[in-house]
Amino acid sequence: MKNPALLLIASGETSPDIRYAAGFSTPDEFILFGVDGVLCAVMSPLEYDRARANAAPDCQVLAESELGGPDRMAVFREIVRRFRIDGFIVPENFPLLWADKLRAAGIPVETRAGTFFPEREFKSKEEADKIRECEKGAAAGFFRAREVLGEASVGKNGMLVRDGEPLTSETLRAEIDAAMLRSGMLPTGTICAGGSQSARPHETGSGALYAGTPIVLDIFPKSQTTGYWGDMTRTVVKGKAPEIVRRAHRAVCEAKKRAISLLGIGAIPAEIHRAADAVLQKHGFFTGIGNAGHFGFFHGLGHGVGLEIHEAPRLSPGNVRPLRGGEIVTVEPGLYYPEWGGVRQEDLLWLSPDGETVDFTEVDDRLEIE
Amino acid sequence: MKNPALLLIASGETSPDIRYAAGFSTPDEFILFGVDGVLCAVMSPLEYDRARANAAPDCQVLAESELGGPDRMAVFREIVRRFRIDGFIVPENFPLLWADKLRAAGIPVETRAGTFFPEREFKSKEEADKIRECEKGAAAGFFRAREVLGEASVGKNGMLVRDGEPLTSETLRAEIDAAMLRSGMLPTGTICAGGSQSARPHETGSGALYAGTPIVLDIFPKSQTTGYWGDMTRTVVKGKAPEIVRRAHRAVCEAKKRAISLLGIGAIPAEIHRAADAVLQKHGFFTGIGNAGHFGFFHGLGHGVGLEIHEAPRLSPGNVRPLRGGEIVTVEPGLYYPEWGGVRQEDLLWLSPDGETVDFTEVDDRLEIE
Repeated sequence: MKNPALLLIASGETSPDIRYAAGFSTPDEFILFGVDGVLCAVMSPLEYDRARANAAPDCQVLAESELGGPDRMAVFREIVRRFRIDGFIVPENFPLLWADKLRAAGIPVETRAGTFFPEREFKSKEEADKIRECEKGAAAGFFRAREVLGEASVGKNGMLVRDGEPLTSETLRAEIDAAMLRSGMLPTGTICAGGSQSARPHETGSGALYAGTPIVLDIFPKSQTTGYWGDMTRTVVKGKAPEIVRRAHRAVCEAKKRAISLLGIGAIPAEIHRAADAVLQKHGFFTGIGNAGHFGFFHGLGHGVGLEIHEAPRLSPGNVRPLRGGEIVTVEPGLYYPEWGGVRQEDLLWLSPDGETVDFTEVDDRLEIE
Repeated sequence: MKNPALLLIASGETSPDIRYAAGFSTPDEFILFGVDGVLCAVMSPLEYDRARANAAPDCQVLAESELGGPDRMAVFREIVRRFRIDGFIVPENFPLLWADKLRAAGIPVETRAGTFFPEREFKSKEEADKIRECEKGAAAGFFRAREVLGEASVGKNGMLVRDGEPLTSETLRAEIDAAMLRSGMLPTGTICAGGSQSARPHETGSGALYAGTPIVLDIFPKSQTTGYWGDMTRTVVKGKAPEIVRRAHRAVCEAKKRAISLLGIGAIPAEIHRAADAVLQKHGFFTGIGNAGHFGFFHGLGHGVGLEIHEAPRLSPGNVRPLRGGEIVTVEPGLYYPEWGGVRQEDLLWLSPDGETVDFTEVDDRLEIE
């Protein structure tokens, strides 16, 4: 293709790329194309006025009726004709149906490998500030959890009790989430996983919570206004933590600290992951598969955060591409054993373009709550 | 293709189809395939244990390592080999990258038109109960809003005041959302649009709220546990509503009532939409485009709700397919005029398989709040 246009069909709610380019978000899909360095969003009557009011400065808003819509193929043909383009470059997750229809109409379609707008990975100061706001919202949620757990009493069999009722994962989550909402954050599946549930990294958690067992609180809100995310995890124990949990917590905190010290422009993610794992092993915590499934440290050390909760770069054993300025990543070592549960500690950090590493997670690593 | 397999690559968070089939949800993408009437989810080590614990009874969970993973192409080749299939049927929004890779490897890929699991449109009693729970959560949010607006006082220039501060869309939204969280619902962009903002149907709303102007409250939470949605809208005015708002509200309520009375198995959505519009016109409210954009009733009357907030069937002027038992739809006529704002009233209704129409929105249509 000599003169291709960029093409996206997505909703702002599900596509961070279209949100990044358009500067606004919609519940329904729309078409966005880019030609000669200019981006244009094609809007239905329902969304047109709102899009015009909120579009990014470098994104034009066109009514679909100007381009022969609402029939999408008519719109595509009009774009081809009007801008004399000879094909479309689309993201990897472009809907197959529309690629097939375009190709059947003789219009070439090619995917762009990786992130569609790779510049999304490198955050400006303005974007970093937005993400820091999200992390503050997450911290507000965590502090509320600490408060609620502090006020809870310990009932029969160690069950936590609040206002005469068992304190459950569901109640604790609602308290965390309500605190985040007050700072404009949208909770999206806050993890409050206690006891044996904490041994499964993505388990959301349900049912009564108990003293003396780890409770993993993984909090990752999305800003209602900006669409950016925060992400943090702390593991807490109401009352006295068992020796094994204390040891694992110490190991995980040390692994986190070590990994953060290695972050920086030019550092290799795979090496940082391995360094964190080495700290865990030094403390006697190993990784493998047993009868009850996986145990130890069996996920990546971290991931990029931006308009996606999981985005580039991955801090994984397989990623050898050096880190670059502007990236925002989590560092979240964890240990999970079916016998006693799990521990994970997660901070969110910005590699500022001038080489500084800024920890956005202003929350200490205290394990026990009295 | 003589012996194709169904194939999905998606996360449970973004694909209602994969959630429906697998019975669980994940933040990250996974592969799900169906062959000889059996569904299999292919999970990474991170998700394997949780998937096994939560999978639907008729969905098997395989470790990606059993199928040559994590390399996806290896997994696809192994599925082809092991089950002797000759291609894949995929959803319309299947990621183009993987379709291109499969086809390049000589494995045919075809999209299935429309909803991938069309049976999602027809809700069982069990599913209807889950959606009714969501609607109750939405109503809890609305009742909280009424309470907050009732307690607010009217300050200078009609600005609403609460605890000495201006009552804003953001504050009211946080109150609605917090009330929903307590019932296990995830708010997802609750609309609190006051004054001129209410004239834009999808405007989320921001800034101070005022007495004597319409405030559109469109509340559509997603259940954190089931993934189903609720959806309701009420328009309210603090204090006395202007005559034009009262007239529009009366027209919209009558249009809603009329449309609901026409719902039923065999009814034609396009006819119901037109009947609602006719009621609005009878009251003197017309639709068109002016200098300031669209005015009147310029969106569809309603839409299906399930694991998607917008799904089939659409109650739109273009849909002539008769309604069927098990469908759950919104009925939400609205009127929007840049001069004075907007009014929308929305209920959620189940067409039970035995022909009954059940209104899930147990909230009255009162306009004014003292």
